[in-house]
Amino acid sequence: MSKTVRKLQVASPVPADIDIANSVEPLHISEIAQELNLSPHHYDLYGKYKAKVLLSVIDELKGRGDGYYVVVGGITPTPLGEGKSTTTVGLCQALGAFLDKKVVTCLRQPSQGPTFGIKGGAAGGGYSQVIPMDEFNLHLTGDIHAITAANNLLAAAIDTRIFHESTQSDKALFNRLCPPNKEGRRSFNDIMFTRLKKLGISKTNPEELTPEEVKKFARLDINPESITWRRVMDVNDRFLRKITIGQGPEEKGMVRETGFDISVASEIMAVLALTTSLSDMRERLGKMVIGNSKAGDPITADDIGVGGALTVLMKDAINPTLMQTLEGTPVLVHAGPFANIAHGNSSIVADKIALKLVGPDGFVVTEAGFGADIGTEKFMNIKCRYSSLTPQCVVIVATIRALKMHGGGPQVVAGKPLDRAYVTENVALVEAGCSNLARHISNTKAYGVNVVVSVNKFSTDSEAELSAVRNAALAAGAFDAIICSHHAHGGKGAVDLGIAVQKACENVQPLRFLYPLDISIKEKIEAIAKSYGASGVEYSEQAEKQIEMYSKQGFSHLPICMAKTQYSFSHDASEKGAPSGFVLPIRDVRASIGAGFIYPLVGTMSTMPGLPTRPCFYDIDLDTATGRVIGLS
Amino acid sequence: MSKTVRKLQVASPVPADIDIANSVEPLHISEIAQELNLSPHHYDLYGKYKAKVLLSVIDELKGRGDGYYVVVGGITPTPLGEGKSTTTVGLCQALGAFLDKKVVTCLRQPSQGPTFGIKGGAAGGGYSQVIPMDEFNLHLTGDIHAITAANNLLAAAIDTRIFHESTQSDKALFNRLCPPNKEGRRSFNDIMFTRLKKLGISKTNPEELTPEEVKKFARLDINPESITWRRVMDVNDRFLRKITIGQGPEEKGMVRETGFDISVASEIMAVLALTTSLSDMRERLGKMVIGNSKAGDPITADDIGVGGALTVLMKDAINPTLMQTLEGTPVLVHAGPFANIAHGNSSIVADKIALKLVGPDGFVVTEAGFGADIGTEKFMNIKCRYSSLTPQCVVIVATIRALKMHGGGPQVVAGKPLDRAYVTENVALVEAGCSNLARHISNTKAYGVNVVVSVNKFSTDSEAELSAVRNAALAAGAFDAIICSHHAHGGKGAVDLGIAVQKACENVQPLRFLYPLDISIKEKIEAIAKSYGASGVEYSEQAEKQIEMYSKQGFSHLPICMAKTQYSFSHDASEKGAPSGFVLPIRDVRASIGAGFIYPLVGTMSTMPGLPTRPCFYDIDLDTATGRVIGLS
Repeated sequence: MSKTVRKLQVASPVPADIDIANSVEPLHISEIAQELNLSPHHYDLYGKYKAKVLLSVIDELKGRGDGYYVVVGGITPTPLGEGKSTTTVGLCQALGAFLDKKVVTCLRQPSQGPTFGIKGGAAGGGYSQVIPMDEFNLHLTGDIHAITAANNLLAAAIDTRIFHESTQSDKALFNRLCPPNKEGRRSFNDIMFTRLKKLGISKTNPEELTPEEVKKFARLDINPESITWRRVMDVNDRFLRKITIGQGPEEKGMVRETGFDISVASEIMAVLALTTSLSDMRERLGKMVIGNSKAGDPITADDIGVGGALTVLMKDAINPTLMQTLEGTPVLVHAGPFANIAHGNSSIVADKIALKLVGPDGFVVTEAGFGADIGTEKFMNIKCRYSSLTPQCVVIVATIRALKMHGGGPQVVAGKPLDRAYVTENVALVEAGCSNLARHISNTKAYGVNVVVSVNKFSTDSEAELSAVRNAALAAGAFDAIICSHHAHGGKGAVDLGIAVQKACENVQPLRFLYPLDISIKEKIEAIAKSYGASGVEYSEQAEKQIEMYSKQGFSHLPICMAKTQYSFSHDASEKGAPSGFVLPIRDVRASIGAGFIYPLVGTMSTMPGLPTRPCFYDIDLDTATGRVIGLS
Repeated sequence: MSKTVRKLQVASPVPADIDIANSVEPLHISEIAQELNLSPHHYDLYGKYKAKVLLSVIDELKGRGDGYYVVVGGITPTPLGEGKSTTTVGLCQALGAFLDKKVVTCLRQPSQGPTFGIKGGAAGGGYSQVIPMDEFNLHLTGDIHAITAANNLLAAAIDTRIFHESTQSDKALFNRLCPPNKEGRRSFNDIMFTRLKKLGISKTNPEELTPEEVKKFARLDINPESITWRRVMDVNDRFLRKITIGQGPEEKGMVRETGFDISVASEIMAVLALTTSLSDMRERLGKMVIGNSKAGDPITADDIGVGGALTVLMKDAINPTLMQTLEGTPVLVHAGPFANIAHGNSSIVADKIALKLVGPDGFVVTEAGFGADIGTEKFMNIKCRYSSLTPQCVVIVATIRALKMHGGGPQVVAGKPLDRAYVTENVALVEAGCSNLARHISNTKAYGVNVVVSVNKFSTDSEAELSAVRNAALAAGAFDAIICSHHAHGGKGAVDLGIAVQKACENVQPLRFLYPLDISIKEKIEAIAKSYGASGVEYSEQAEKQIEMYSKQGFSHLPICMAKTQYSFSHDASEKGAPSGFVLPIRDVRASIGAGFIYPLVGTMSTMPGLPTRPCFYDIDLDTATGRVIGLS
């Protein structure tokens, strides 16, 4: 048994998350690191309870076998969430603290926006949490701040470049970009050669460029209308959704309409989540497309000269952050891209490091955002495609509450009391709702993995209801289905789940993707739509135009990242259960070229949340005598 | 001799700053900490070369005597800068590595904006630098990111509050602010009691408020025109100087004109620099004024309910960051407020911790931004007023180049070659320019401290020129005047300066402020203007109005922070030397109530820099094989 395992004293009823988190004294993170056989040169401490594990660990352990790779998805959720993060943490506490397995939990870093807004933190819940909870939810080790800084440096560079191009001749622009040194000689630097190569110019001496080449090189000629790069901020600031910039007198009337997204919606977050090494990150950041030239050619961060600086800003962010669960098992927190306009999974590098650290027979449990139709699908077809990793087992989290909703129960609204239907026995409603679970199971099994269903047990659930789910899950092809109580009991409440997952990791087939990359964008979209139950796909004029453009620009080989509601298999959030026969409408198609995916928009996605009348921040304060954070939820 | 002292091998001519910085392997910061008698529980590591020293050290060492307190100011500079930071570092390398003194250098954290823009980094220069240079200039330990997050949370809260007030009745607003708990009971929380107290309402049960009291409590009734709180970003983004927000359809036409400043211009940065404890910071953040109600009452962060959350975001930022110089002496980096709209000095808590750590006979050398007319004046009248600390010695940094400019030399422009006058001997020009130095000396001596002049020697300076400065300095009342070469030689080049500073710290008089706090705002402004050489002060209508408002609101007891050009004693940057008899125009008057000062605007201050056609970022990249930053200047 690991030396860092901590015995929990559980109370009933379950106290508030912050009270449970504060009741446990975390271990110094170097102790957690030591249990993973990490030496001090493998990590950088950030205070006493966090450490960044250095990417070089992957190289150092190259020869070592990987552990088992488990991903936690869910059924189509209610707006209250069904406890995927809690299950991810609880399962690991079971594996590490009760089943004597080497285990690492891989989680996403939450945005600070919701922490101060409506939702609160995201460190799990009850007796299955990551601690210290305040450090997990705030700043962490600065990765999101680095993303904000990098994203906005690029944004500033775009508008300033357009401004300088508008006020200078080709020659003046060129002379400023390649200024003479003390000896009066001009030269190109490395990032300029990237652009010259793209333009097919092989000259190395600036003086030798023809006027036509000078123009091509120095004038990006960005079409302001085409700019897709927005600014970001890790705050719920709805008044920045749509703004006009450049209204100062010095900007000479070059106003432009744009907006801010929340930082985790930045393409740079998706790059961080999908990158595999420093050099890969440098390349992805450099090839991010910010818009087109007036001639229709994609303009990249490297064209603007800023890809290297972005990499420098992100160089520490590429190292995942080591933390611990309530029961002393290790956690790697890293990246947290949106699950609609991006792929909603934590980072490849954290999973890779974790798989080496636990080694053969060990377990890495990672989480995929939203329901399995989105989270697991993107985990397989985007994340595993880029990582070349193969999962053995998928856990699908379900609750009686959500299944009743899918069976026809009344609407569930966050902040309003639950209808009686959800707190009294109704087996028929549960059985009817299992159509949703069944489709998630069969869709997931198609990847070649074993599926274990984990039912998050609530005190109001009846035995008959729970056994109905178990039966339905097994009938739908689940490897096993387990009733869990890790929220109330910590790892002890997920021991059976841990045993089932261990068994499910044996004898699995190779990973089968839902679609190959070398078919057209539309064929890929249609393959995914079919998995939703759609009978066809309908494209808006704008979507058609974008698909044509991206195909022409040579981006049709990328995987697809659907931006769809998580509240239904279909595009209509009110369609519960397992809808079929609908036509999926594609409103628009966008792309994150650096991250490496095309994202069709199925409906409107908000990328900047707002604050309610009484946000969470009203209750958050510092006890200045102890230095402790209070009121965090 | 300290065990951490490192012998430098200096090369000639002096290599590029980054090459010097990279040529030295920094010590693990725990070794630097140990030399200061800090135990691991006194600090949090942030990687191998940075540590946050915990504020609790001040309490723990309460009984210990303070070291000597030295501040480095300068004469009125050229746009190239005269090497104040370099002198600050060089002097400390001399004291610590050659004169066997306990010493701590206290520096400001630089903004990331200039690092990627025009100016480059700010870690000193030549053989007098803080290392690692890239970590100093980028992210550091996240303090500026925390300021950005806190500043913008408050900004979002302001606009959203106005929005919610505009769409809800008093009653609805109140019910949402004080929602019923599970038992149906409403209650106020701590931050609400702060507002109730301000309104003179002593009731503790929400149900007992009269409709009139409900309205007063729940409706802040912010006048959008009066909002002075702007958003911030640590990027040179000129297109955000003036923007229109709220143009999204969901914001229902509530558009407003505002803008972004660079993060270091945030009042929260000034709060960080002037605070003395966690509870003091909580109080200052809560009482920051963001604008007025329509009735003209100041609205604070605590009125909006966010003062506690801001403190939580800033709780780690209050701990200064320990780094090291090229010669292995300790440095505390902390806070970096603007030197015009704010007071331009590093933090009080860093200085306080440093004074305890070096103890009696030790030295703390801190820097004051801009020339002594601004930096030292604010150091004395604002920073020392809040810290209750007394400096013994002020170093005034001068260069032959700047003195020649003051003597009537041609204009000095950054980026253009220096005129011949600056690189050939001209003793008369130097002597004429010493009027500027003389006034800085006499103004500074008036505080009761000893003044040591440090001349940063350039290779083109002649012996006759240097001795002219020395003579003029002594004639003007300087305690001593030393010719230094720490840029070329490290601490060895500032040994004489170190010896002079040691002597100057003995037998000084008590600190005499330039003005008392209990006179009127105008009288205080006039006292400062007189020190500039002005014969009088002229107020715009807007300035008169603001002075009247702040006086009425009860803020006239605050010290004054002049927002004036650093390029002249007067408001006119082209007036070199020691101008007198002019009338100082006050264009506007603003206030940072939480930080604790009123700031009159003498001219227009840019609070958001821009990027040039070829910004520094073009040359910055990561060597992905070694992980090393290249091209940083």
